Amino acid sequence: MKLEAIYHKPYSEFAFPVAPDTLVIRLRTAKNDVNTCILIYHEKYDTSQRGKVKMDKVASDGMFDYYEVELNVGIKRIKYMFYLEDNYSIKWYSSDGFFDYMPQWGHFTYSYICKDDIFHEVEWFRNSTIYQIFPDRFAKFPPDTENSGKRTIHGGNIKGIIDRFDHLVKLGVDVVYLNPIFKSESYHRYDVVDYYEIDPMFGSKEELRELMDLCHKNGIKVIFDGVFNHSGDKFFAFRDVVEKGEKSKYANWYFINSFPVQGYPRPNYECFSFYGGMPKLNTGNPETAKYFLDVVKYWTVEFGVDGWRLDAADEVDRKFWRKLRDMLKDLNKDVVLIGEIFDEASSWLWGDQFDSVINYPLKAMINDLFAYRSIDVETFRNRISGYIMKFNKKVLSSLVNIISTHDTPRFLTLCNGDEKRFEMAVVFQFTFPGVPLIYYGDEIGMEGEGDPDCRRPMIWDEAKWNKKTLELYKFLIGLRKRFDALRTGEYGELPVTGCNGILAYRRGRGENGIIVAMNTLDRKENVVVETGDSFDTVKAFESLKDEERLNVDKKRINICLNPFEWRIYKACGEL
Amino acid sequence: MKLEAIYHKPYSEFAFPVAPDTLVIRLRTAKNDVNTCILIYHEKYDTSQRGKVKMDKVASDGMFDYYEVELNVGIKRIKYMFYLEDNYSIKWYSSDGFFDYMPQWGHFTYSYICKDDIFHEVEWFRNSTIYQIFPDRFAKFPPDTENSGKRTIHGGNIKGIIDRFDHLVKLGVDVVYLNPIFKSESYHRYDVVDYYEIDPMFGSKEELRELMDLCHKNGIKVIFDGVFNHSGDKFFAFRDVVEKGEKSKYANWYFINSFPVQGYPRPNYECFSFYGGMPKLNTGNPETAKYFLDVVKYWTVEFGVDGWRLDAADEVDRKFWRKLRDMLKDLNKDVVLIGEIFDEASSWLWGDQFDSVINYPLKAMINDLFAYRSIDVETFRNRISGYIMKFNKKVLSSLVNIISTHDTPRFLTLCNGDEKRFEMAVVFQFTFPGVPLIYYGDEIGMEGEGDPDCRRPMIWDEAKWNKKTLELYKFLIGLRKRFDALRTGEYGELPVTGCNGILAYRRGRGENGIIVAMNTLDRKENVVVETGDSFDTVKAFESLKDEERLNVDKKRINICLNPFEWRIYKACGEL
Repeated sequence: MKLEAIYHKPYSEFAFPVAPDTLVIRLRTAKNDVNTCILIYHEKYDTSQRGKVKMDKVASDGMFDYYEVELNVGIKRIKYMFYLEDNYSIKWYSSDGFFDYMPQWGHFTYSYICKDDIFHEVEWFRNSTIYQIFPDRFAKFPPDTENSGKRTIHGGNIKGIIDRFDHLVKLGVDVVYLNPIFKSESYHRYDVVDYYEIDPMFGSKEELRELMDLCHKNGIKVIFDGVFNHSGDKFFAFRDVVEKGEKSKYANWYFINSFPVQGYPRPNYECFSFYGGMPKLNTGNPETAKYFLDVVKYWTVEFGVDGWRLDAADEVDRKFWRKLRDMLKDLNKDVVLIGEIFDEASSWLWGDQFDSVINYPLKAMINDLFAYRSIDVETFRNRISGYIMKFNKKVLSSLVNIISTHDTPRFLTLCNGDEKRFEMAVVFQFTFPGVPLIYYGDEIGMEGEGDPDCRRPMIWDEAKWNKKTLELYKFLIGLRKRFDALRTGEYGELPVTGCNGILAYRRGRGENGIIVAMNTLDRKENVVVETGDSFDTVKAFESLKDEERLNVDKKRINICLNPFEWRIYKACGEL
Repeated sequence: MKLEAIYHKPYSEFAFPVAPDTLVIRLRTAKNDVNTCILIYHEKYDTSQRGKVKMDKVASDGMFDYYEVELNVGIKRIKYMFYLEDNYSIKWYSSDGFFDYMPQWGHFTYSYICKDDIFHEVEWFRNSTIYQIFPDRFAKFPPDTENSGKRTIHGGNIKGIIDRFDHLVKLGVDVVYLNPIFKSESYHRYDVVDYYEIDPMFGSKEELRELMDLCHKNGIKVIFDGVFNHSGDKFFAFRDVVEKGEKSKYANWYFINSFPVQGYPRPNYECFSFYGGMPKLNTGNPETAKYFLDVVKYWTVEFGVDGWRLDAADEVDRKFWRKLRDMLKDLNKDVVLIGEIFDEASSWLWGDQFDSVINYPLKAMINDLFAYRSIDVETFRNRISGYIMKFNKKVLSSLVNIISTHDTPRFLTLCNGDEKRFEMAVVFQFTFPGVPLIYYGDEIGMEGEGDPDCRRPMIWDEAKWNKKTLELYKFLIGLRKRFDALRTGEYGELPVTGCNGILAYRRGRGENGIIVAMNTLDRKENVVVETGDSFDTVKAFESLKDEERLNVDKKRINICLNPFEWRIYKACGEL
């Protein structure tokens, strides 16, 4: 047994509660090393309440297998250890290490499942599809005849969104996420000048209220962009510091290295990405924190904002996020907090900080498989599995899954305009656990390189739309509404034999389950997909895009896939 | 290279800041597997600010080596990966896994060192020695002629502590920790009836104020015992629930499974360890939380309490602890919060919850080596090293190191009365990183089996005192005051050749360093201790308990130790 590979840690992604009576316990082993993994447990103070339970192998990546059990046995204070078997030996694994006999001491401990420390998903959010609007570039009213397509201001406004609202309704999205709209000096508005005003270029508070009402009447929620890592350098507090130096009562709102403050040649204060126009805010200062908590409260209460996407969230202190969460959830536990974090962000997602993050690491994997074609299906599956195992399993279906954003090239462009690979990525985005986000224009086949080219004005000339792409988005949004499995069902890999270029997975299990298969190669493939024990009562699978019906034989189905073809099937109970 | 053994994770004990400009980065490898480990880093937004730095092997346990570097290179947003060499191969290790070449993407990220997320030690506490008083059993005034030694009430009171105060002053302790003193129904007072009253058996608020003043005048701080996991069943809120059932406005202060509330035969409400007299408090209820925050505030502000030891801390929700911390630290950042947690408690010690915990896992190791003699020195060292590596390195010297408590047999009894092994354990307790706690009576050689026998009344007949033990305690308390290295110096193992029963380690390095050596065997041993690079300017070591002087030769010293003998040396710069 490869003991060095075995890993467990209480109060981490290896032991966390998902309900007041349910603790998920995981163990990592080397890949294909252990045959049996059993959890041995007892109540902390009453050893007569004890038992054993077999753990399931739920995931494998390139190096490790992951075993898991959801322990729901009526106890909240849990002492436990593991019993392991491979072909040659048996071991007990406790907090003191490995033993050839069952040790009497050294159990791992999960002291008490506190209901207030459990991560709770926000249900409406988990069930949504998001549409991202970059305000200056989406729509203007009255519409001009010509769009510049340049980095300069295009003039998108609230009236424009209202004018084009029908597009969102027809598409079927549930949430609109607006990039920043507060008064600022730039077209992107990430350098806010006044957190209490709407940028006049974008519109007025009255117009905003009209838009919010229109959205809410149509069952669409609205998420704002909160920029609290930094302000703009024209924000009143920073201007005061520039003017009065050390004597400014806002001097401690920023991180000024020396006075007088100067932005050139290099700022002598901390800022976002060395850009002097975005001085970093000291949210650790209670006064500063209070100011921005009040800002969030104002818009949330006065305008009914349903959630906040928090810019550069991993560069802001966690105390501030906890305060913001406490304040917001006290107002309304359904307001959602989403961190913008480019790296693996599980440490922000244990219930005390965010409800979700923008899922950039998943995008990197999607890029590699579908756009760059730099990895094969096996590597992709391994990376997905390893990634999933870093999270509380309840978090996964709330993460915001993206393929394009305002900071990255559009996905179709990453695919060199290859629609088929773009389509596969979209299908994956909508069928993998998480909340899909559509970056305005992706749904009609817009292209664009990195910032600023990915921020071209939305094309409203329908003759220039890719109608097939638009239909695909509508189809997938509809599927997510129709099938609970796509919103809440667990993800499981399905083994494929016959070709290593086919990706197949399930969402959920049994007669309510869904199967997805896609061919990442440019040749036709005939493969056998093992549907396994998760579908043991299922007799057949029905394609959701055409009439195809596949019978299950010995827990297997045969699938024929054209080059770059994807298919989605639902399980059927009877022949 | 054993790749499965290699482990790193940002925002954990493997990557944490210790100052706004300093990030500690660690990497785990298989034991004796890797020869070179180099950290490659760059600034998140400016890749021209880049560099490499060799990591040091700082610890080894039974299976792993641990490499560490304190990165202090003027950047706060850090992207990094590792370069590894063994005898046969080289590897780069990034967040995407292992590569034979240096990958361009997939760096690990520490997004920003937020000063408000850094763990800060409370300096006065880190420098202290604690004396634990179990109030009913310590001292009474006027003193009776006879102590019962039974579980029944003995009658220790505030006047008694004041009467015997001289003992604490002579001993030289810096802190008094009082087990619960609020009004309750039992002699141990963990079932509080009134959180705003002193138990009348123990004294009055006026007397408490006198004691607090006496302590503070003598430079002694006072720590109270906060029992917020549960109240007593006679606490007003629980009585109201018992009386009014569901309609009680305190029904949500507890976890009642069914009404009417009943304690027998088994409580139909959650409680501490199934004991109906201690119903578990719902600190997740904001009203309940507020009540107890106010309690803590009252005693802290009105009586100048210097810290709180928090009972059953791992069974209470972390949100409550964060609120308590925020409230207390706003009052006075020097008030210390200490969790009572029996298991490895690093997850409470990242700066948002506790300043310290009672170090039970260390006690288990001390028990095994010195009392039970069930492990050898090598196993002890391995367990210590693995344990240390689970923590933020700044936390270690604030943990409360114990050998006896009111819940465990006295250490001398665990040693079957063997004073020599008891002495060695005490020396270890006072020379290992952390704050030593003396459980009343240990210092005069009291014995006692588990609760209630470990709570015998303090012996005040000096004729029955073990004066040698008392002198040892005074000596060690003095050493900790005299030598900064014993309070703040890093711990390092020292290799020993000649006998595997000798434990040797250093605190600090260079001319201010200290060396400790002890012989855990019952035979005389002559050994060579490698003082190594940490003392490369040191010519000799001087014993702190006698005239012995050991010259350093080729980074080595020879030590001769009698059976169960311990020695403490200070480094000398010149011959």
